[in-house]
Amino acid sequence: MNQKKSTMVVFSGDLDKAIASYIIATGSASMGNEVTMFFTFWGLTILRKENAVPVQKNRMDKLFAKMLPRGPRKLGISKMNVGGLGAKMMKYTMKKKNIVTLQELIELAQELDIKMVACTMSMDVLGIKKEELIDGIEYAGVASYLAEANEANHNLFV
Amino acid sequence: MNQKKSTMVVFSGDLDKAIASYIIATGSASMGNEVTMFFTFWGLTILRKENAVPVQKNRMDKLFAKMLPRGPRKLGISKMNVGGLGAKMMKYTMKKKNIVTLQELIELAQELDIKMVACTMSMDVLGIKKEELIDGIEYAGVASYLAEANEANHNLFV
Amino acid sequence: MNQKKSTMVVFSGDLDKAIASYIIATGSASMGNEVTMFFTFWGLTILRKENAVPVQKNRMDKLFAKMLPRGPRKLGISKMNVGGLGAKMMKYTMKKKNIVTLQELIELAQELDIKMVACTMSMDVLGIKKEELIDGIEYAGVASYLAEANEANHNLFV
Repeated sequence: MNQKKSTMVVFSGDLDKAIASYIIATGSASMGNEVTMFFTFWGLTILRKENAVPVQKNRMDKLFAKMLPRGPRKLGISKMNVGGLGAKMMKYTMKKKNIVTLQELIELAQELDIKMVACTMSMDVLGIKKEELIDGIEYAGVASYLAEANEANHNLFV
Repeated sequence: MNQKKSTMVVFSGDLDKAIASYIIATGSASMGNEVTMFFTFWGLTILRKENAVPVQKNRMDKLFAKMLPRGPRKLGISKMNVGGLGAKMMKYTMKKKNIVTLQELIELAQELDIKMVACTMSMDVLGIKKEELIDGIEYAGVASYLAEANEANHNLFV
Repeated sequence: MNQKKSTMVVFSGDLDKAIASYIIATGSASMGNEVTMFFTFWGLTILRKENAVPVQKNRMDKLFAKMLPRGPRKLGISKMNVGGLGAKMMKYTMKKKNIVTLQELIELAQELDIKMVACTMSMDVLGIKKEELIDGIEYAGVASYLAEANEANHNLFV
């Protein structure tokens, strides 16, 4: 038994990069690899629930909460976003061409037992609480990510 | 025989990141490593031919084709681009200092037998056809990239 | 003795990405890994001294010197920067929550003997001289980075 491992630090919260991350992650898991995705900083926005969850926040955390997108459907793209227009164009064309959506990719990742981990330090920085993130994920610090990465040959930072 | 492998997912279409990618890739190949570059999303713009190629496109694909840069000489940079000014500054200063250009790096990569692969799913999303990309490259999906990455210890996402 | 190695190409000069890089790097070194950070392009701005150092520069290099931030306290963030406001918000909230600063992380990295290497080709492109960068770092080209990466399983591009 010598199972290969893939890890990804998902730092970016851009729709296009999120799609790329999940396509690589689900592809790797489909090959039989053990896959860990570690969501830090803006990457946490991919895991946010769509609706506001009533939690106690200080003023700065409330501001971050308002400014940051809530989940896959609200993300912008890294280029040509133009106030969300680029993201709409990309979603429109991907739908027309029957390409899998980010929401579907996240579900597929969960079916494939990909370990999705929210970085607790980043949650602290951005004032994001567990209740605000989707179910079925884990919570840990960088040491947990590094323990996986140390045993993996395929490690990416997105 | 235990040849090492490097792989790079070239997601970005920025001139500065493209130069960094090719410098790492050609450096690795020069050391005797087997190198694969997998071009996805905006990274595909690096491989576009400079001149428009007459191909059938739907309206959205035509729009993408118009908005996206055609090849190395048209790329912007990731910081301080200011409508292309930053890219001009960078190219001017690199030329004055006799630093290799992106076009030369791409040629060098081909001489060094670096495998350049255009991601077919991304081509589909952006409506880019094979005829529009430079010669001497391969076409494949993420599984092909992962087969290489699985055997490589040096894997980057740019 | 089979010490593991981590390498990072620090291409970005964004505060948030710099913090993420150093948290991963210092975490890896704390686990007993040998860590190399290779600073290229905008990543060099992280290593700049705060105060202007009198060095001879041509006109273009002077322009780059003026436009690029000098060190950790001047960096912007990759999202929502809005003329530095986002960076201020992030630093304010991180301070209030007692999270380590980038300056402290850089010191920690030096205490942990992390090898910080400034890419000499990038210094040439941006016209940055050794005297302008902090003490205790090394200077080398991409071949030096690749020699480390070739022996490492954990390689990131940030």
